[in-house]
Amino acid sequence: MNVANETPSLPPPDLEALRACFSGRLITDARDLEAFTVDWRRRYVGRTLACAQPDSVDGVAAIVRWCAEHRVAVVPQGGNTGLSGGATPDESGRSIVLSLARLARVRHVDTINNSITVEAGVTLAQVHEAANAANRLFPLSLPSEGTCTIGGNLSTNAGGAAVLRYGNARELCLGLEVVTAGGRVWNGLRGLRKDNTGYDLRDLFIGSEGTLGVITAATLKLYPKPVAQVTAMAAVENPHAALRLLELAQARLGPTLTAFELISNLCIELVQQHFPEHRRPFAGPSPYYVLLETSDSESEAHANAQFEALMEQAIEAGIVLDAVVATSGAQSRALWALRELVSEAQALTGKNIKHDISVPISSIGDFVEQTNAELQRRFPGIRMVVFGHLGDGNLHYNVSPPVDRSGPEHEDEFLAMQPGINRVTHDAVVAFNGSISAEHGLGQLRRDESARYKSDVEMALMRQVKQALDPLGIMNPGKVLPPA
Amino acid sequence: MNVANETPSLPPPDLEALRACFSGRLITDARDLEAFTVDWRRRYVGRTLACAQPDSVDGVAAIVRWCAEHRVAVVPQGGNTGLSGGATPDESGRSIVLSLARLARVRHVDTINNSITVEAGVTLAQVHEAANAANRLFPLSLPSEGTCTIGGNLSTNAGGAAVLRYGNARELCLGLEVVTAGGRVWNGLRGLRKDNTGYDLRDLFIGSEGTLGVITAATLKLYPKPVAQVTAMAAVENPHAALRLLELAQARLGPTLTAFELISNLCIELVQQHFPEHRRPFAGPSPYYVLLETSDSESEAHANAQFEALMEQAIEAGIVLDAVVATSGAQSRALWALRELVSEAQALTGKNIKHDISVPISSIGDFVEQTNAELQRRFPGIRMVVFGHLGDGNLHYNVSPPVDRSGPEHEDEFLAMQPGINRVTHDAVVAFNGSISAEHGLGQLRRDESARYKSDVEMALMRQVKQALDPLGIMNPGKVLPPA
Repeated sequence: MNVANETPSLPPPDLEALRACFSGRLITDARDLEAFTVDWRRRYVGRTLACAQPDSVDGVAAIVRWCAEHRVAVVPQGGNTGLSGGATPDESGRSIVLSLARLARVRHVDTINNSITVEAGVTLAQVHEAANAANRLFPLSLPSEGTCTIGGNLSTNAGGAAVLRYGNARELCLGLEVVTAGGRVWNGLRGLRKDNTGYDLRDLFIGSEGTLGVITAATLKLYPKPVAQVTAMAAVENPHAALRLLELAQARLGPTLTAFELISNLCIELVQQHFPEHRRPFAGPSPYYVLLETSDSESEAHANAQFEALMEQAIEAGIVLDAVVATSGAQSRALWALRELVSEAQALTGKNIKHDISVPISSIGDFVEQTNAELQRRFPGIRMVVFGHLGDGNLHYNVSPPVDRSGPEHEDEFLAMQPGINRVTHDAVVAFNGSISAEHGLGQLRRDESARYKSDVEMALMRQVKQALDPLGIMNPGKVLPPA
Repeated sequence: MNVANETPSLPPPDLEALRACFSGRLITDARDLEAFTVDWRRRYVGRTLACAQPDSVDGVAAIVRWCAEHRVAVVPQGGNTGLSGGATPDESGRSIVLSLARLARVRHVDTINNSITVEAGVTLAQVHEAANAANRLFPLSLPSEGTCTIGGNLSTNAGGAAVLRYGNARELCLGLEVVTAGGRVWNGLRGLRKDNTGYDLRDLFIGSEGTLGVITAATLKLYPKPVAQVTAMAAVENPHAALRLLELAQARLGPTLTAFELISNLCIELVQQHFPEHRRPFAGPSPYYVLLETSDSESEAHANAQFEALMEQAIEAGIVLDAVVATSGAQSRALWALRELVSEAQALTGKNIKHDISVPISSIGDFVEQTNAELQRRFPGIRMVVFGHLGDGNLHYNVSPPVDRSGPEHEDEFLAMQPGINRVTHDAVVAFNGSISAEHGLGQLRRDESARYKSDVEMALMRQVKQALDPLGIMNPGKVLPPA
């Protein structure tokens, strides 16, 4: 698959010829290239011949054709905010980073069809703005939304906190424009809710992390804006109780329930330690908390009444220990901040080990209980920083070192545990029929680990698809699939 | 692609060897085979060596391996209710109909994960029953649900009236079990809401009409059962007004709006003529009607109040001429019957020409206006029987002959118009960036017509996928893709 590894002796290609074949920018200065060859988390450092920033989809196609001709790898890149190294070139140096940054037009908004067509380099925040200006909602929401681009969101099938109601990036996409590995433009920009005319090429490109082609534009779903969004927080004894609350909330609130997030007490402790202005809204601690959000088409009063009735029933049934319903936007934001600051608070405590896993929702309680116990047995004292999108069965099941071994001087010791901690965690995930990469994609980070767990049949099917759509192996080699 | 056409001189395979390689039934008697070689609408009559009905997924795999070895085509078949001839063998006779009828187990219901795992031969009605027994909803609903199977629903990505809220069969599926064209079993039965570990093989098999592999089981989404479902009907002047009502209803009702169907007056006239006990619920006729349904998590009273307020506003705004809200289950069923009897009423009037098209929802008004006018110009007096899922942009844009040319003696004359009527209609659909097969699939019926409209790039991508996953071309040849 890896062009560079197969062809070490190819002569360096003529970048001036590349520069001449498209309209836009070609960055070749080594210092300027650094921004494109290191990933967001600074875990991967690659090398590249140049970064091409074409102005148009025809430019993208010309660049891909040039790369195919010269057997140069194409590494598509959006906002470079990925968490798995999927947009970082490898170390061979025989690649072009293809930045979609200048394909940044909102092409069309259709309020009756509830759709918007944007180019790949439009940031997620810009999609929100365009939707908002048309009095519509685009529900995908991520911490990096000011920087990440819609092309990257679709290439990695981004998730987030609103998946419970609206689905992943995949479910929010109606159509794509793609430059194939052969450098042809496929116009699949349909704004249709129903279209059964052949194979689902759209979903094949979504989530393929640039290894099958380059997404250059997309038609996305919009939704009517809710009249009111209200947030509540409930204290619960354990994830099992959180699941009982989920079932009750879904029965009572139906599709107006738009977020259901789990936060362990240690997460809240870390937030309070590093951001003292943020406090849990309860008198004392509880082992776990659930953050709920409802998006109401009627009124704030209606949303509040719905939440109050839900919490009353949940407390009476012994599911919930205590609960608060936000009565203002400021209170809502304060509750959300407790959830959103967890990653940053954990980072401020030092090195940590991250997992992005999912299991069937019904297995969350058993998974956490059993995996916590097994990890404590094998790595006594490590601290479990467990939080995430419980309503989707998706947890950021993170690990920090024991309190007495958490200084910088213990970092190496902790990182040496990483392979073992990953193995215990991912073995448990797979035993529960779960996924070791729920919303961040495989990139380089989880590529080999994923291949280890997948069946031969599934790996063979994936390789057949890759070979069929990218026979030269030039599209983002070394990502998703291990080199053949 | 078509094995039989490429290899006319192969000796007939030994069916006793096939019989020995799986547990289940092998039907070879010519009379018994008729049920499997003619499609539901009796438009296609094929030939087959035998119909194999294996008892297990391993049996399916063994049959496919046998077929691969002997270069015999595999034609998967569920309830044989498809409308495009996708499950009917061709006339070559060198095929096995692979009936999934005996893979009919409900394997697992998970009420917390809101999922159900069923084998391919389970009928849609049986999925409803199993969901219902667990106090859950499986929202896919089709007129043929007593006979059609979930394997067929997924292979054709079935639609229906609830797509507005819940999506197509595709969006209701979490995971698949598939026998590949090589006769291996891929276990992709994940019950996960988030899983970003590679290419989306699931969605590649869904909607591929058995041309890439055989779906043998699926894990499907369930939903909490709504507390109340209420139906309303509104009389409107034209499809433009219906669209204004759609926008208002979506803003006011949000995701509780679960159906939004358009019915032209002629449809109602035909129903009243053939089923006189069913009458429009208004004093006089109106050019168009909209059927709306809401699924409420609170109460019937709440749903009614929401509908009343919506209709009041719509009448005041001049969008709606008149409206009724059903106040009982019987009234709801009576309103739905007016919609559901349209196909049968049209069939009772004699031959008709059917289309299953979609356009962006915002274009429905212009599409109907312009295409009606063009068809009248070219074929004066033909009657437009227009109805369908307006909320999805999907119309069954059907045509009946002029009143004075509608007897059986004029049938040939009318059917001679069919190519011209199809061409005008489909050219208009494509001009509006729509789909000529919204929810019925391509099968044999729309295969060449679809290829005519698709770009070379898209056809090439589809052929690459087909070649990669079915290199021998044995999987349901002649469906979806024209022979190479």
